[in-house]
Amino acid sequence: MKHVTHTYFRARYAETDAMGVVHHATYPVWFEMGRSDFMREVGVPYTEVEARGYYLMLSGLSVRYRSAARYDDQLSLSTRVSEVRSRTCVILYELRRGAQLLATGETQHICTDSGYRPARMPADLLAALGG
Amino acid sequence: MKHVTHTYFRARYAETDAMGVVHHATYPVWFEMGRSDFMREVGVPYTEVEARGYYLMLSGLSVRYRSAARYDDQLSLSTRVSEVRSRTCVILYELRRGAQLLATGETQHICTDSGYRPARMPADLLAALGG
Amino acid sequence: MKHVTHTYFRARYAETDAMGVVHHATYPVWFEMGRSDFMREVGVPYTEVEARGYYLMLSGLSVRYRSAARYDDQLSLSTRVSEVRSRTCVILYELRRGAQLLATGETQHICTDSGYRPARMPADLLAALGG
Amino acid sequence: MKHVTHTYFRARYAETDAMGVVHHATYPVWFEMGRSDFMREVGVPYTEVEARGYYLMLSGLSVRYRSAARYDDQLSLSTRVSEVRSRTCVILYELRRGAQLLATGETQHICTDSGYRPARMPADLLAALGG
Repeated sequence: MKHVTHTYFRARYAETDAMGVVHHATYPVWFEMGRSDFMREVGVPYTEVEARGYYLMLSGLSVRYRSAARYDDQLSLSTRVSEVRSRTCVILYELRRGAQLLATGETQHICTDSGYRPARMPADLLAALGG
Repeated sequence: MKHVTHTYFRARYAETDAMGVVHHATYPVWFEMGRSDFMREVGVPYTEVEARGYYLMLSGLSVRYRSAARYDDQLSLSTRVSEVRSRTCVILYELRRGAQLLATGETQHICTDSGYRPARMPADLLAALGG
Repeated sequence: MKHVTHTYFRARYAETDAMGVVHHATYPVWFEMGRSDFMREVGVPYTEVEARGYYLMLSGLSVRYRSAARYDDQLSLSTRVSEVRSRTCVILYELRRGAQLLATGETQHICTDSGYRPARMPADLLAALGG
Repeated sequence: MKHVTHTYFRARYAETDAMGVVHHATYPVWFEMGRSDFMREVGVPYTEVEARGYYLMLSGLSVRYRSAARYDDQLSLSTRVSEVRSRTCVILYELRRGAQLLATGETQHICTDSGYRPARMPADLLAALGG
């Protein structure tokens, strides 16, 4: 079964906009925070990935917004991998306030070397992501 | 034929990240800037939409990243409407550096009243969006 | 003695820039997060301040950067009030990674009503801030 | 006489917050945009500074907020150097909407090499900054 991690945090005031709710471009920033926690928990912190000369660059992003988050809301974000290949992976996110699902998201990634050229993931990274 | 607007700008340093390129969550912010220019050009500035008690909230976002933008790059963003209905619309974006396509995006919107309840767009807004 | 609150968090990747360290405009966002925690701990959450028709707007900001924070650093931020008058207050911040002081900051605030006009702070807010 | 550059732009929706005005942490991002324009105009684009192995890191920042900027406001930012020494400089900013002064700011910088160690500025950079 796939690993799922949970990240808990509050919405910041700076993340809101003049509509009075959290700005939509904040959600990918939260997803990235979830991804950081996921990678640390499965044993390959992203700092190490970069230290070894790899990037997991974004090739695609999608978000479905169902209900708005507001300043100071206590939120939980679940993160899990849905697909892994030797050079790419897809990660899924669910953002909740209590039991209510506020948004879902997906990021597609491509592994590159430090020169931004597509590269095979190191074996331990691939394994940690469930590949 | 559908209206297309073009927005010209440079990537800011604050928009980059430790990979040395523009952070992926910057692109929806740029799309929003393109949307502002679009709405002003077709005669319904978004400031007026809100002044009249409506929001065009995001219900969905997707981005395809093809090649990274970097600090100080001179960029052009084209914005156009692809679908309009009485309460919703879909807007498309293409980001280029010179002739090179760097990213494409799509935002889905729902028109709401000031209480965030779905609402029919005013007739002039609908017409300006091509509906 | 003045109340001091502590906020613990990690630097996000989106908060870094092409220098490889956290972008300087991130620090006021962190200070604001510290301020939110402070106000909640002293019994006047900022959500309540706004719900009662007041804003604590910024009139001034200063930051001294001593050593750079980096992605995924575990940071602690201390927040305390240094001055309070009937309509204004000054808040101080210290950002640390372990024992190392990375930055210090100060924000000056003015209390306004919901029309952005200067206003006396409600008595309980003034008391909570130590005035 | 010292060189002054002017940058013209509109406030973005993403730069606002739930107070309905531009968030205070946006101002240092705008100052940085002014700094980029300044350096390009005086003949040492910041991209070149970095390409030659130097950074102009921030050691200090201060902002005085006089009147709030709002979404879609047409703004002008003036940027000029107030002090230059062999390893440091101070830059001043004035933000206006029409004739109205909205904010003033100051950034202090230290020149470092690519390892973040303090370094003398190259002669042409020093000269371009007025030193």
